[in-house]
Amino acid sequence: MRIAVDAMGGDHAPKEIVEGVLKALKQFEDIHILLYGHEEKVKPFLQSHERLTLIHTEEKIEADDEPVRAIRRKKDASMVRMSEAVKNGEADACVSAGNTGALMAAGLFIVGRIEGIDRPALAPTLPTIDGQGFVMLDLGANSDAKPEHLVQFGIMGSIYAAKVRGIEAPRVGLLNIGTEETKGNELTKAAFGQLKQAPINFIGNVESRDLLMNVADVVVTDGFTGNMVLKTIEGTAASFFSMLKEVYGASTKSKLSAYLVKDDLRGLKNKMDYTEYGGAALFGLKAPVIKAHGSSNANAVMNAIRQARTMVEFDVCGTIHSTIAGGKTQ
Amino acid sequence: MRIAVDAMGGDHAPKEIVEGVLKALKQFEDIHILLYGHEEKVKPFLQSHERLTLIHTEEKIEADDEPVRAIRRKKDASMVRMSEAVKNGEADACVSAGNTGALMAAGLFIVGRIEGIDRPALAPTLPTIDGQGFVMLDLGANSDAKPEHLVQFGIMGSIYAAKVRGIEAPRVGLLNIGTEETKGNELTKAAFGQLKQAPINFIGNVESRDLLMNVADVVVTDGFTGNMVLKTIEGTAASFFSMLKEVYGASTKSKLSAYLVKDDLRGLKNKMDYTEYGGAALFGLKAPVIKAHGSSNANAVMNAIRQARTMVEFDVCGTIHSTIAGGKTQ
Repeated sequence: MRIAVDAMGGDHAPKEIVEGVLKALKQFEDIHILLYGHEEKVKPFLQSHERLTLIHTEEKIEADDEPVRAIRRKKDASMVRMSEAVKNGEADACVSAGNTGALMAAGLFIVGRIEGIDRPALAPTLPTIDGQGFVMLDLGANSDAKPEHLVQFGIMGSIYAAKVRGIEAPRVGLLNIGTEETKGNELTKAAFGQLKQAPINFIGNVESRDLLMNVADVVVTDGFTGNMVLKTIEGTAASFFSMLKEVYGASTKSKLSAYLVKDDLRGLKNKMDYTEYGGAALFGLKAPVIKAHGSSNANAVMNAIRQARTMVEFDVCGTIHSTIAGGKTQ
Repeated sequence: MRIAVDAMGGDHAPKEIVEGVLKALKQFEDIHILLYGHEEKVKPFLQSHERLTLIHTEEKIEADDEPVRAIRRKKDASMVRMSEAVKNGEADACVSAGNTGALMAAGLFIVGRIEGIDRPALAPTLPTIDGQGFVMLDLGANSDAKPEHLVQFGIMGSIYAAKVRGIEAPRVGLLNIGTEETKGNELTKAAFGQLKQAPINFIGNVESRDLLMNVADVVVTDGFTGNMVLKTIEGTAASFFSMLKEVYGASTKSKLSAYLVKDDLRGLKNKMDYTEYGGAALFGLKAPVIKAHGSSNANAVMNAIRQARTMVEFDVCGTIHSTIAGGKTQ
C-alpha cells in the first residue's frame, strides 16, 4: 500500500517527519511512502530507500494560514499535493502534522466525504489511567452538530475501534452532564433516542468526570463540547504538573522526594501521552487522513503512519461506507 | 440581618450544618439565623443562642427527589419553609446544602426572579493555582441558553465579583474553543458581539485550558458546557490524585517520597478545595440563595453563610436589579 506524508507540517518538520517515515519503512515491509516536501529542506535528513519516493513541493501551509483559503491558493503546498495523491488513487491514505484546519479543509474539499456522511469528525484516541485508551469524536471538525451527526460519529467510531483497536463490540457512550436518559441539552436529548436505534453497542450517557477511567471505547459529542473537554483535560493536567513542580521545588526535602520518584512520575506523564496511539483520524472521508500532533517527534509520526496503515488494511473507510449506505443509520 | 438555613440538606446534615451555623454566629455579630429542620434530629447538636431561632419542619427533600414535584408537594420541607421565609421577607437570604435541582426550583418558584432576568444561573467560585479564584456561570441551572442570557450572566457575575470578591473592574471572559472573535459555535459567536456592548469589562474569549490559571474573574457559558467543564476538571483531578497514590504506594522508596511531601500535597489538595470561597450562588433571584456543596462540613457551611451575608451587605441583588432594569443590557 502507498501512504502519502506531508514532510513540511508540524513544529519539528521536516527532521522528525523524515525520521518517523524511515522508522515506519523499517517497521512495515508492505508500505511505500510518498513524501511531499521541499527537496533542499528534506534531503539533509533523508536516506534513500526503495520504498520511498520524494516529491518536491515549493510551498507549505503555515500554522497561521487561514485554512480554506490556503488550501485553495497554495496549489503546490506539500499538504495539498499529498491530499491530491489520495484523491487520485496514487496513495491509499495520508498523514500530516501540520495546520489542523487546513488538513480538515483538504480532507473535505480534496479527498472528499464518503457518500451519506454529512459531517466528517476529528477523532483522536485519548488515554485512560489503565492504559486502554478511547476514541472521542467530534473533537473540532465542526462546532455545531445535529442529532443525526452524532449517530454517524457513533457508527464511524465503533467501526474504527473494532477494526483498528481490536475491541469487540465497542461500548459507545454519549457525552452528557448526567447519566439519566432525560438529561442534557436539546442536542443530547434528541441524539440519545437515535443512538439507541443505531447498529452499535450504545451504553447510554457517559460523564466527562469518568472519561479517563475507561468508561467507554467510543465517546460521541459535538465539536464544540469535544474540543472544550479535551482542552480542559489538558489544562487541568498542566496545572497539576505545574503545582507538583512547585511542591517539589519548595525545599531540599521536597527535592529529595521528587528525586526518589522521578522515574515513576515520568512514567505517569508518558501514560498521558496520547501520541502512542497515533494521531487524530478524520472520520467520514473516502480514505484515511491522519492529523498527527503538531509537536510530533519521529516516534509519534511512525505511530500515525502505523495507524493509517491499519485503517487501510482493515478497510475502515469501506466499512463505514457500506454501513452508512446500507441505510443502517435508521 | 436574618439568614435562613436548611438544617436537613447535605450528606452530613444536620450535625455539620448546625455546627457551621454556630461558627457563623460566633464570627458575625450582625446576623440572626433561622434554622429549619426536624427538632428531634437537630437538637442533639444545638446550643441555644440568642441570635438563633429553630423552626420545626416535618419533611425534607431527599437527594433523589424529582425537584419540581418535591418542592410543590412537600410543603413542610425544611428547604421549602426556608425559601418561603426569604419570599415573605422574614429572611434576607438563605443557604442549603441539599438537592441542587430542588433548591434551584425553590429559588425560581418561591423566591422568584429579579424583574428582567430570564434565566437564573448557578455560579460557584472555582479555584485557580494562585489562590485567587474565579466565578463561573451558568454551571447547570439551565442546559440551553441564548446569547442574551450569557450577557445577563456576565453582568450578574461582574457585580458579584466586584462587591463580594472585592475585585475592581472584574475581567469577564466568554468560555470558548479559541480566542479569535470568529471562533466557537452559533451561541458563542452571537454572544461575543453582545458582550462587547454590555456594561462590563469584557476581555473576549477565554479557553478552558487556561481557567485554573486566573485568566478571568468571571467566566460565562451555557449550563451544559459549564457543567461539562466543571466535571472534567473534577474528574481529571481525581484521576491525577489516583495515579499519584499509585505511584507513591508502589515501593518503599516511593512511600518514603510521599512521606517527605505529604504536607505539601495536602496543601495542594486544599488549594483545589473550593468550599473555602463559599457555595454556589444562584444569581438572578430576588434575594441571595446559596447552594453549599453537598458534602459540606461545618467550615464550608460557615463560608456559605459568610457569602450570603456579604451578598446582603453589599446589596448584590439590588444592584443586579437596577443594572438590568436600567436597560443597561442593551
